[in-house]
Amino acid sequence: KIKEIFSQLYPADMAELVAELSSQELKFIIPVISLEKLAFSFSELDTNTRNVLLNFLTPQQLKVVLNEMYSDDVADLLGELTIGQSKELLKLMKNKDAQQIQKLLGYDEESAGGIMTTEYLAVKDDKTVEEALNKIREISTKTEMIYYIYIINPNKDLLGVISMRELLTADAQKKLREIMHSKVIKATVNMDQEEVANQMSKYDLLAIPVVNNHNQLLGIITVDDALDVIEEEATEDIYKMAATSEFEITAAEEGILSGVFKRLPWLIILLFASMLSGTVIGTFSESLSEVVALAFFIPTLTGTGGNAGTQSLAIVVRGIATGDLDRDKMFHHLFREVRVGATTALICGLIISLIAFFWQGTYFIGAVVGLAMFFTIITATLVGTTIPFIIDYLGADPAVAAGPFITTLIDVSGLFIYFSLAKVLLQHL
Amino acid sequence: KIKEIFSQLYPADMAELVAELSSQELKFIIPVISLEKLAFSFSELDTNTRNVLLNFLTPQQLKVVLNEMYSDDVADLLGELTIGQSKELLKLMKNKDAQQIQKLLGYDEESAGGIMTTEYLAVKDDKTVEEALNKIREISTKTEMIYYIYIINPNKDLLGVISMRELLTADAQKKLREIMHSKVIKATVNMDQEEVANQMSKYDLLAIPVVNNHNQLLGIITVDDALDVIEEEATEDIYKMAATSEFEITAAEEGILSGVFKRLPWLIILLFASMLSGTVIGTFSESLSEVVALAFFIPTLTGTGGNAGTQSLAIVVRGIATGDLDRDKMFHHLFREVRVGATTALICGLIISLIAFFWQGTYFIGAVVGLAMFFTIITATLVGTTIPFIIDYLGADPAVAAGPFITTLIDVSGLFIYFSLAKVLLQHL
Ligand SMILES: [Mg+2]
Ligand SMILES: [Mg+2]
Ligand SMILES: [Mg+2]
Ligand SMILES: [Mg+2]
Ligand SMILES: [Mg+2]
Ligand SMILES: [Mg+2]
Ligand SMILES: [Mg+2]
Ligand SMILES: [Mg+2]
Ligand SMILES: [Mg+2]
Ligand SMILES: [Mg+2]
Ligand SMILES: [Mg+2]
Ligand SMILES: [Mg+2]
Ligand SMILES: [Mg+2]
Repeated sequence: KIKEIFSQLYPADMAELVAELSSQELKFIIPVISLEKLAFSFSELDTNTRNVLLNFLTPQQLKVVLNEMYSDDVADLLGELTIGQSKELLKLMKNKDAQQIQKLLGYDEESAGGIMTTEYLAVKDDKTVEEALNKIREISTKTEMIYYIYIINPNKDLLGVISMRELLTADAQKKLREIMHSKVIKATVNMDQEEVANQMSKYDLLAIPVVNNHNQLLGIITVDDALDVIEEEATEDIYKMAATSEFEITAAEEGILSGVFKRLPWLIILLFASMLSGTVIGTFSESLSEVVALAFFIPTLTGTGGNAGTQSLAIVVRGIATGDLDRDKMFHHLFREVRVGATTALICGLIISLIAFFWQGTYFIGAVVGLAMFFTIITATLVGTTIPFIIDYLGADPAVAAGPFITTLIDVSGLFIYFSLAKVLLQHL
Repeated sequence: KIKEIFSQLYPADMAELVAELSSQELKFIIPVISLEKLAFSFSELDTNTRNVLLNFLTPQQLKVVLNEMYSDDVADLLGELTIGQSKELLKLMKNKDAQQIQKLLGYDEESAGGIMTTEYLAVKDDKTVEEALNKIREISTKTEMIYYIYIINPNKDLLGVISMRELLTADAQKKLREIMHSKVIKATVNMDQEEVANQMSKYDLLAIPVVNNHNQLLGIITVDDALDVIEEEATEDIYKMAATSEFEITAAEEGILSGVFKRLPWLIILLFASMLSGTVIGTFSESLSEVVALAFFIPTLTGTGGNAGTQSLAIVVRGIATGDLDRDKMFHHLFREVRVGATTALICGLIISLIAFFWQGTYFIGAVVGLAMFFTIITATLVGTTIPFIIDYLGADPAVAAGPFITTLIDVSGLFIYFSLAKVLLQHL
């Protein structure tokens, strides 16, 4: 009965179910479930459950599981284990497979090579449509994606691609090279995973071939993995913009200390950085003693500046991530931001200036607060727009120009503008 | 020659190229390019270029284009036009197609119905494998996704699904109902698009069938559109967390005023909200006049509180969006956050307390600043974690608990704690 229930489960559901079983229950369940299906659910398991399973399964069972898994998932699994464990598992695999996995492990985790699978369908260009269809029928159960057929020559150079749709309706006796598309959208093995996923999204591909610098076919990346990449990269950017380290995603399963370690360093760095703002206020403490009301507007000034900067920042960071804002468009975008920023600054400056005047009843406070707001928002827009572009240009990830760093910078400059204006005006009154 | 260049372009590239052509050039180009391919690139065009093209094309040409486009893209196109324009275009379509499009236009834009296409492959359950393959060959050019075959009865009830991979290797004379999977992962027509995309990602699907409440098949959603949804929703969340309205994504093409209108309202609301912080400081202005140095720590206190709150917030907002943090896990997560928050608060409190003591040389400032930091970070963690959960529970989008709103709330409470502590301690010294 249990066997029947498990046999109807999708791999993703089996992964969820297995994760909730106790060691006792696992002992009981493993012999009755199909190892083939367990293999497919392996890549969906969280680290804990995966380690429990790795200890539970006999070498013989592990051999079956590893043999069924697609190579990209095996590489991901081994990449997370210790070298010792990883070697043990590699020994269980066929020599040829083990070599392939070791090659995959050599690529950067976030590159095309790091997410590609080596189970793809490649056929020589002099084969006919009929021969290709027969080959597909033969190896289709072992191949992850059979709906794109890649055409190669004996040197494994990528010559073209044909979709299953085209193959099904083509003349059975035609040679593949006569009907293939030779302008193939492809990824090179060191390309960043986010760029690859954006390409697949742009061209609506179900898979993209990965080649080396000599155009030899090494593997393919399937669209389900592209979906994971887009989701993962968005999470990474959101976390970075919130100044917490990536991969908090498994938060619920982690200990307290790991959470503290991922957040505290950022908080402390930013705490020290924000002391610069305190120092600015300290430098002007005489003006502040003279007019204590100047302090009332500190939160609004730094808050609004920070918000305006974060708005500009979010647009640039997201634009770079999705590929919508490339370097060519940078100056055009900056020019637009300056004008949007100036308009926004003018209006917010006027509003806060009126509030300050009616609350405090002096022209002095109204003028100082209004002018400071105006210049702070303009600074914020410039900083929020240019810094991520500069970081991107230097080859780093623009999301590390995390919101908090930019707002801290804006705080310091906004307060400096504010108190400088106050001091100058106080001296002339 | 131009014809040849265009004939080799992918639709996405043609869209990019067409977008850069002047009206003069368009007049020249349109007659030589294939309208079929133009149809595929239509959904990739920006609004401007699309409108230019709609005016350029003759009704006869538009008819061809609309007929080639998939129904989800036609619905998206018409949904962005005025009712008048939309009616004009519907008139050019076949009656049956026009009715289908009008039905699609009736669904919420961000629901399964709003992104589904009606070009899918459905076969009756009493047909054989061979019959199904023949049908696929026949209609494959008109159907967007032919790699999943949906099995229905005469009432259009969804009974099962078979992949092309299975069909190709199955016994030609078997009935479909004997080999189909009857446990189909499906979406109901009103399901939120983000939930649908998460399901497709979880089960690694190339397409998902969309049914009504009676399990009748209405359409399918293809994985390329799921990719767009995941990207779009991530952008939306990042923009909301940065308190700017969604769809700034086309920033480079928009006027200044539209940018101002999307950002200014948020800035002004937040500006007024932040005046609450100013009022808190104003209320305690006596303590502040007594010890001006209290002002030096305002940016660090509000900044660090805001950062800690944003960290907690980002984890919850992203967890809800990806489906990793559902309501069952909420209390577990909150409990964990409280402990992480308390640890973080203790350490940050100690650090700032030491800084304050050594800078100002009095125990008073050290104690007040340290204690205030401790309580502010704990408040921040609680607020950052619970508010998005509550908003989600109320059925709204947790990302509207945008970072800035939460940091403004934290500013107010942090400053209140800080100055209350200062006042009490000042009275007892
Ligand atoms: Mg990998
Ligand atoms: Mg696309
Ligand atoms: Mg994979
Ligand atoms: Mg995967
Ligand atoms: Mg990235
Ligand atoms: Mg990355
Ligand atoms: Mg739509
Ligand atoms: Mg997946
Ligand atoms: Mg579509
Ligand atoms: Mg699309
Ligand atoms: Mg959403
Ligand atoms: Mg949404
Ligand atoms: Mg702030």
